[in-house]
Amino acid sequence: MQDHGSLPSVLDVHVNVAGRSSVLGKVKSRKARWSVRPSDMSNKTFNPIRAIVDNMKVKPNPNKTMIALSIGELSTLNQEAAFSFCSFLSGYLSSREEVASYYHCPEAPLEAKDVILTSGCSQAIELCLAVLANPGQNILVPRPGFSLYRTLAESMGIEVKLYNLLPEKNWEIDLKQLESLIDEKTVCLIVNNPSNPCGSVFSRRHLQKILAVAARQCVPILADEIYGDMVFSDSKFEPLATLSSKVPILSCGGLAKRWLVPGWRMGWILIHDRRDIFGNEIRDGLTKLSQRILGPCTLVQGALKSILCRTPRVFYHNTLSFLKSNADLCYGALAAIPGLRPIHPSGAMYLMVGIEMEHFPEFENDVEFTEQLVAEQSVHCLPATCFEYPNFFRVVITVPEVMMLEACSRIQEFCEQHYHCAEGSQEECDK
Amino acid sequence: MQDHGSLPSVLDVHVNVAGRSSVLGKVKSRKARWSVRPSDMSNKTFNPIRAIVDNMKVKPNPNKTMIALSIGELSTLNQEAAFSFCSFLSGYLSSREEVASYYHCPEAPLEAKDVILTSGCSQAIELCLAVLANPGQNILVPRPGFSLYRTLAESMGIEVKLYNLLPEKNWEIDLKQLESLIDEKTVCLIVNNPSNPCGSVFSRRHLQKILAVAARQCVPILADEIYGDMVFSDSKFEPLATLSSKVPILSCGGLAKRWLVPGWRMGWILIHDRRDIFGNEIRDGLTKLSQRILGPCTLVQGALKSILCRTPRVFYHNTLSFLKSNADLCYGALAAIPGLRPIHPSGAMYLMVGIEMEHFPEFENDVEFTEQLVAEQSVHCLPATCFEYPNFFRVVITVPEVMMLEACSRIQEFCEQHYHCAEGSQEECDK
Repeated sequence: MQDHGSLPSVLDVHVNVAGRSSVLGKVKSRKARWSVRPSDMSNKTFNPIRAIVDNMKVKPNPNKTMIALSIGELSTLNQEAAFSFCSFLSGYLSSREEVASYYHCPEAPLEAKDVILTSGCSQAIELCLAVLANPGQNILVPRPGFSLYRTLAESMGIEVKLYNLLPEKNWEIDLKQLESLIDEKTVCLIVNNPSNPCGSVFSRRHLQKILAVAARQCVPILADEIYGDMVFSDSKFEPLATLSSKVPILSCGGLAKRWLVPGWRMGWILIHDRRDIFGNEIRDGLTKLSQRILGPCTLVQGALKSILCRTPRVFYHNTLSFLKSNADLCYGALAAIPGLRPIHPSGAMYLMVGIEMEHFPEFENDVEFTEQLVAEQSVHCLPATCFEYPNFFRVVITVPEVMMLEACSRIQEFCEQHYHCAEGSQEECDK
Repeated sequence: MQDHGSLPSVLDVHVNVAGRSSVLGKVKSRKARWSVRPSDMSNKTFNPIRAIVDNMKVKPNPNKTMIALSIGELSTLNQEAAFSFCSFLSGYLSSREEVASYYHCPEAPLEAKDVILTSGCSQAIELCLAVLANPGQNILVPRPGFSLYRTLAESMGIEVKLYNLLPEKNWEIDLKQLESLIDEKTVCLIVNNPSNPCGSVFSRRHLQKILAVAARQCVPILADEIYGDMVFSDSKFEPLATLSSKVPILSCGGLAKRWLVPGWRMGWILIHDRRDIFGNEIRDGLTKLSQRILGPCTLVQGALKSILCRTPRVFYHNTLSFLKSNADLCYGALAAIPGLRPIHPSGAMYLMVGIEMEHFPEFENDVEFTEQLVAEQSVHCLPATCFEYPNFFRVVITVPEVMMLEACSRIQEFCEQHYHCAEGSQEECDK
């Protein structure tokens, strides 16, 4: 089994490329024109039942009720549904309509045909990568970022190029460095907003700049917007697709986060393609790939309308108030601890905390720091090495307030017990 | 998009190989020894969170209650579960225990560690293929057979070799032809029992012969047993793993069929490996691959114990009586129709019907036959070309009895209207 000793190779790529681009002071050029092709894998995905049934041009005899002896489900009493079962594999039409109408807006219109239902947002991301990238091609992934992007990409032989988020700029993207990574083999830019693990929310202005890079370099975007609308009152979430009609965007979302039902495994892809750059080929590719494992849980599909349309506003409001209050509380407590540098979040359910490692010489890195925190204080946080970002750790702010406070006070005790003055900075230690 | 015009290439392979082997009259030799290796894809699947958290050797401080700030789920109030969330990705431990104890027996013992929960049986099959086969290697697939095997394999670049089921022998495997297909690149034999689309159930004796081939040739088996226990009273289902301790077997199943909840997307892989041929590497590979899309619906996982342990026997009994009665009814009705040759099923929910195409000269093939059946009679059956078996069609026997009878009578009307005497067989037509 591979261990996390392999992380440095990816980090090296990142550092080298960043260093090179800043030395040269210019962005690599490439012939920029739109040419988005479905992957070999999606071209090779062939469902003979679908091919044969979909090609069937005849209509049933209108004078006889339909009897479908075509699919083996005792529970299928809806004969019309059985007859059109192939489209069901990407989600029931009515469920896709619900999602489309929930997200539809004049700037980014959506119909049922623009929605693919998936087994959770993670499958949505998998399908997007699988349709856009061939082995040997590359995708642009945020650092720090959700580890699943890399896990999925590398398992498919897709190269990962890491672009930097800047903690000093509220985790905005280093756009120059981002653009310097793009080459002929770049097939997708992943934008995760609001961010896991950072809890940051991009401004409209910053999103427009990201879109400008994608438009100039002709790179389609996978927008991981699973935390969309999970932003605190002082920020605003702007769906990426509402800000550009030029750049083709696959927006991934799901029920897990906003509706707090993570294990229900209901996700979706929203296809935004007003200039017809993805075209039918990418749509077909996504549909074919989504049929490899035959669609998401129907129980949950059946509940979609109620969840999307009838969840009272106060539910969202209470969730966000709770998160915002916990975020403020946690940030305040950790900012007062010598040796820690928390970054204030604006959304999602996370907060990143920098560790001034020079003040904790007992620990080699963030992994050891968080391990010892478990051993002594029974507080478990993920070291940000998990997100390609050493010397930070991530705090989840979803626990009850009293637990949040207790955790912060244990972290404080831990840091006080292990804090050492850095060499040559005695004053700092006297405070 | 590929159309079903590409089917013949696969059929050609089949026919050629079968032809060659019968001409030579012997089976190709290969150095037969067990060497089951995890695929490159599974080796490349790396979840840094899991790698880091699983490698964490420390224990929490026993004097302080655990506070997990490690995963972002507001609904996770169970802190112990959150701390050990990585194992949850292959299914909750308690859910895996339920499945293990349901299928455990002295001849094929199972523990929770031998169970991987998946998003439906189709994902179980996908994971098994993904862990066993690299692009360019091949797997053995029944013909006729469920089209998903081919769809999944080809999308991953795995070659499909079709072995024959013999309608005249109640769809038993042509074992000689099967063995003749095995070469150095063969990594898996798929055995589907009871069979979709045939509705056949293998005898213990036939299963032992299949196992003997696998043992002699050192080919591990993927046993698709999703229809296990769905057999009529005159037959008996024997789980393949109970008949051999030598051959390593991945048995795939799920809730969909026996429990009649197809859309719930709850499947599993049972790892049978008493000789340690799969070893830890294949287990780890399956676990890693199952974590790419983060586990099946938790709602359903929570219901597993009740479903597996508290479903009254009468539920299964009624299901099987209903299916057996429909099977007899449908077989009887179709056997009386000139031009059709149904094969009596012993289980599952299907029945295959041969079409004597020479008596239906208007139709080029089974696809046209079934199309016209929809157009005239509003009865929809899948042409068996969908299962690599032209000139048959598959009937699903799960509809209410009155509908089953109506469908058969419409099929009779259709056949009578289109039946022509074959040239040179006038007598037959006079009957």
